[in-house]
Amino acid sequence: MLVCDWGTSSFRLMRVSASGEILAQVATDQGVKQLNPEDMEAYLKAQMVTLGSITAPVVLCGMVGSGIGWYEVPYVTCPASVKSLSAALVRIPQTDLNAWCVPGVKLTSSQGDADVMRGEETQIIGWLTQASERERTNSTLCLPGTHSKWAHVEGAEICEFSTAFTGEMYALLNDHSVLVQGAQVACDNAFDAGLAASTDGAGLIHQLFNARSRSVLGLQSASASASYLSGLLIGSEVAGVAKKLSPGAVVHVICGDYLAEPYLKALTHFGLRGMHYSGSTYSALGLRAIAEARDLM
Amino acid sequence: MLVCDWGTSSFRLMRVSASGEILAQVATDQGVKQLNPEDMEAYLKAQMVTLGSITAPVVLCGMVGSGIGWYEVPYVTCPASVKSLSAALVRIPQTDLNAWCVPGVKLTSSQGDADVMRGEETQIIGWLTQASERERTNSTLCLPGTHSKWAHVEGAEICEFSTAFTGEMYALLNDHSVLVQGAQVACDNAFDAGLAASTDGAGLIHQLFNARSRSVLGLQSASASASYLSGLLIGSEVAGVAKKLSPGAVVHVICGDYLAEPYLKALTHFGLRGMHYSGSTYSALGLRAIAEARDLM
Repeated sequence: MLVCDWGTSSFRLMRVSASGEILAQVATDQGVKQLNPEDMEAYLKAQMVTLGSITAPVVLCGMVGSGIGWYEVPYVTCPASVKSLSAALVRIPQTDLNAWCVPGVKLTSSQGDADVMRGEETQIIGWLTQASERERTNSTLCLPGTHSKWAHVEGAEICEFSTAFTGEMYALLNDHSVLVQGAQVACDNAFDAGLAASTDGAGLIHQLFNARSRSVLGLQSASASASYLSGLLIGSEVAGVAKKLSPGAVVHVICGDYLAEPYLKALTHFGLRGMHYSGSTYSALGLRAIAEARDLM
Repeated sequence: MLVCDWGTSSFRLMRVSASGEILAQVATDQGVKQLNPEDMEAYLKAQMVTLGSITAPVVLCGMVGSGIGWYEVPYVTCPASVKSLSAALVRIPQTDLNAWCVPGVKLTSSQGDADVMRGEETQIIGWLTQASERERTNSTLCLPGTHSKWAHVEGAEICEFSTAFTGEMYALLNDHSVLVQGAQVACDNAFDAGLAASTDGAGLIHQLFNARSRSVLGLQSASASASYLSGLLIGSEVAGVAKKLSPGAVVHVICGDYLAEPYLKALTHFGLRGMHYSGSTYSALGLRAIAEARDLM
């Protein structure tokens, strides 16, 4: 069967075996942000042709099921499990494809907190298929990205989650602010200094300008300011969670390789233990598990 | 004499009396960001003509004395006073104008913190000319803006300060992020909800996405998201300082009228007492005081 993780800025169609192993795949930068909704079906078909399977059932997850995607699928309410997600799978209407879409998950609290995810729930379900019984009972997961998700799993359910704005904030500051200027080079020392500064003083909004002041006063080369900022933002994200966890607690980190290194470093800095899992593998496993629970295999 | 507060995004030339009262002024949006450095002298001359005083001494402060301004004036080191600032006044060379520029102030700590200001030091000096003896001895000041400054005054000196990135952050999120979408209306309730949320949970980077989730889930109209965000950011800024101050402490707020209301509201929310002073009045008073200390009057 085919499974597809179609997010805001990326597309990945995979042919998977009965055990969820990826046999072939097409990965592009054609996220739902890059396409008009009316062009998405044709785009998917063309990639299915590439993988040689135009008639196979295909199960999708991610922003493709949002208001800016191909077809909007209502959220399920947290806590969410493979059972509730598969029960709420929607067959996409008005297409000759046998296409199904996984819902996102929403969370609201009596204090007025609100949060949503689309796509990450599927990676968490995938991770649960490989987790030990103990891990399925009680685990903390981090899914870094444009909007990082932190989730708590209990009894094999996603029982709580929250979103950190780190990735989009970094991109905004990098592209448009006075904090980062000129050509940048990766700089481990500056990243570490940003991590250390993230818990200083009066909080992030007071710390950000440091990135500029350090350059202006020659304490840091301007070319290292993006690394400093990355440390400051990821440090701020991890520090906020670390204070609620026990020292030495394990955090399961699901993401692409390039984000794994800074997040693992930040987790270590705050006395936590990070374990990294590759994002696309767990999307495939999750989509397969949700499809199987609905007897679509 | 003439005094001029020339910042990144605004220009204000004022003719002041011997007591520092503003007799006439020209205020435009031609900040140093809008002009080439080589055009700044001519621009200033044209405005001096408008005020009828091309031969009078003119004392400037703000980003006009920075690397992106007309002529770069080195920072003085914190603690700074009317004495140290006037001693470091620089007469701008290679012009037939009798033009002087106030230096900015820099602060570095042994922990690697660094901060800079240009322009706000002059407003603080202006405020000190009007302050009571008790206020001159020990006061906390807040100067909201693109980069808000928080300063501590002791013994009529600026003895410590820090910068909050609130204004630029708000503009970035408003212009470029997914958090604010569509036409906006001012909304007091949403501002208050943002204030309340600013101290919840795991910190700002975790709270920001709430602005979007609340809209997506229909808990808040999309048109109120900018007000929510404003409350969240200003709340985050004030909360970070409030935890270091005594309950009921007075904060002297120097800024234009449109920023006064949200800041005073946030200060009240966090148990502090805000007193507002109009920004341009205090620039004029500060420039006059620094000029007088150098016998330029």
